[in-house]
Amino acid sequence: MGEFELIDRFFRRARPAPRAVPLGIGDDCALLAPAPGMQLAVSTDMLLEGRHFLSTVDPSRLGHKALAVNLSDLAACGARPVAFTLSLALPSVDESWLEGFARGLFALADEHGCELIGGDTTRGPLAISVTVFGEVPAGQALLRSGARAGDDLYISGTLGDARLALEVFRGALTAPAPVFELARARMEQPTPRVALGQALRGVATSAIDVSDGLLGDLGHVLRGSNVGATVWAGSALPLLGVREKAGDPGDLPDEARQLEFVLAGGDDYELLFTAPQARREAVASAAAASATPVTRIGRIEAQPGLRVLDGQGREIRSSFASFEHFA
Amino acid sequence: MGEFELIDRFFRRARPAPRAVPLGIGDDCALLAPAPGMQLAVSTDMLLEGRHFLSTVDPSRLGHKALAVNLSDLAACGARPVAFTLSLALPSVDESWLEGFARGLFALADEHGCELIGGDTTRGPLAISVTVFGEVPAGQALLRSGARAGDDLYISGTLGDARLALEVFRGALTAPAPVFELARARMEQPTPRVALGQALRGVATSAIDVSDGLLGDLGHVLRGSNVGATVWAGSALPLLGVREKAGDPGDLPDEARQLEFVLAGGDDYELLFTAPQARREAVASAAAASATPVTRIGRIEAQPGLRVLDGQGREIRSSFASFEHFA
Repeated sequence: MGEFELIDRFFRRARPAPRAVPLGIGDDCALLAPAPGMQLAVSTDMLLEGRHFLSTVDPSRLGHKALAVNLSDLAACGARPVAFTLSLALPSVDESWLEGFARGLFALADEHGCELIGGDTTRGPLAISVTVFGEVPAGQALLRSGARAGDDLYISGTLGDARLALEVFRGALTAPAPVFELARARMEQPTPRVALGQALRGVATSAIDVSDGLLGDLGHVLRGSNVGATVWAGSALPLLGVREKAGDPGDLPDEARQLEFVLAGGDDYELLFTAPQARREAVASAAAASATPVTRIGRIEAQPGLRVLDGQGREIRSSFASFEHFA
Repeated sequence: MGEFELIDRFFRRARPAPRAVPLGIGDDCALLAPAPGMQLAVSTDMLLEGRHFLSTVDPSRLGHKALAVNLSDLAACGARPVAFTLSLALPSVDESWLEGFARGLFALADEHGCELIGGDTTRGPLAISVTVFGEVPAGQALLRSGARAGDDLYISGTLGDARLALEVFRGALTAPAPVFELARARMEQPTPRVALGQALRGVATSAIDVSDGLLGDLGHVLRGSNVGATVWAGSALPLLGVREKAGDPGDLPDEARQLEFVLAGGDDYELLFTAPQARREAVASAAAASATPVTRIGRIEAQPGLRVLDGQGREIRSSFASFEHFA
């Protein structure tokens, strides 16, 4: 099967193009037309076998994830997904693999009204590069640079589950099947917080998606905004989502390890954001409107650096840098 | 060197962002703001070692080519380059390689006022994925679908040189040093016809960039426009650019092989376009204004199919399909 037949068969779909896509797949370029007053948010991520996913992953889950990690970046900017491009290097033309990959990819794309507008396929070691486009009203994108001293610090969902699954895959941990399956789904099929991101426009002062671990990504916000923060790592912090599936404490790693996964696990794709204390009701409304759990986990402060407190208010680590070895 | 340090050191530059880029590299997304009345042309290409370039290629030439092949797609739409993203998988952090790659990349980017606005770096088999963005007035993009019976058919520059270099690299041909060096430069550092593409807006009825060979890419235009064509493969067709460097006929492959390289060589990145016969002066003006040689090589016809005539007007091949084995 040649490149053009492959594209026709698996990636071209007969459907009316959305308003913002005057020209889709099939020419030298696609054309995008943001509505008047809108800017176009752009993000790109490349996934490689062995580095970002295991060779054994279900192809439909991989199709989902390749787009999800990019939609998560749009969510962090408060943008509405519009379109994406896909470049795919494949070691061979495996029709069953391609069918599954396209199914997972388009299921998520359709959920968000995000149109495939172009791409490239070639033979090579499995690599997936997606570039995604979203609309955001001019001046309203959520940036890393807007956090202000006194702001509350929030996280969506739960953290650390994907890392737990990774450690089980690596053979470093064991977990009962229900715990592992939930963690694995979090790792392989993350949910981009697209609705929450848009609901937070005009409410949040800054946002970032957590892909490299909570503390590492919070560090980007603190540097971007020239502020510091305290994170309450005790009861205020949402712990592993898989705790609800655990029968007894022995089903999970010890509490210190769980905390490490939560603070620096990676591959979470939750939104970390800040908002003024005066906007707590607006944050609650955004969470409710987007049906996304949100937890207040700390405070932005003028004092530089990142302080992490345990349930008794004792500092767990004295500086952000101490956590980099988790990465 | 970590990912963030690598980006800071080789790919982040302190410079004022252009008007159309309200937010560049460094956040979850970049922001693009096309001017009122403008659409955004988008194209993406992935280059893999061993498939699209040799492992021995000079990294600065590779940086040039990774962007050039994408700018060539913008040129074929008549778009003005604005910005690009770069995803890079690297087997190791080789500072001298990265310095060279970035130098070649930014030299071409700066020539076209095209801003790096984001990307991704990761460890893996060498792969380069670029997505490029350009502005084009709404409704004025050059498409593959606009060719009409009676239109003239044109090609910019010369063809087949890159293929000659490839055959020398493969050991299938030999060539004297001046011939080989020119051919190699055409293969490794193609010139995207960006100024010509923009000058052809409102003049050309269709355009495509020749990356897979003249006849193959012409086939896309014919199918897109539902027309046929005759190509004059005799004296009208610009032959290898390297002919001017050849001392005697023995320095080049035989005429039949040269013609094959010209008609179906690949990696040319010239513009193939159509325009009404009444616009010949406008085409000449566009060529002059963009300092780009342009040659009339055939005619669009209502009769479907692709006819190729030699210098004596004899048909060389009876159908487009006959040429696919060149690919």
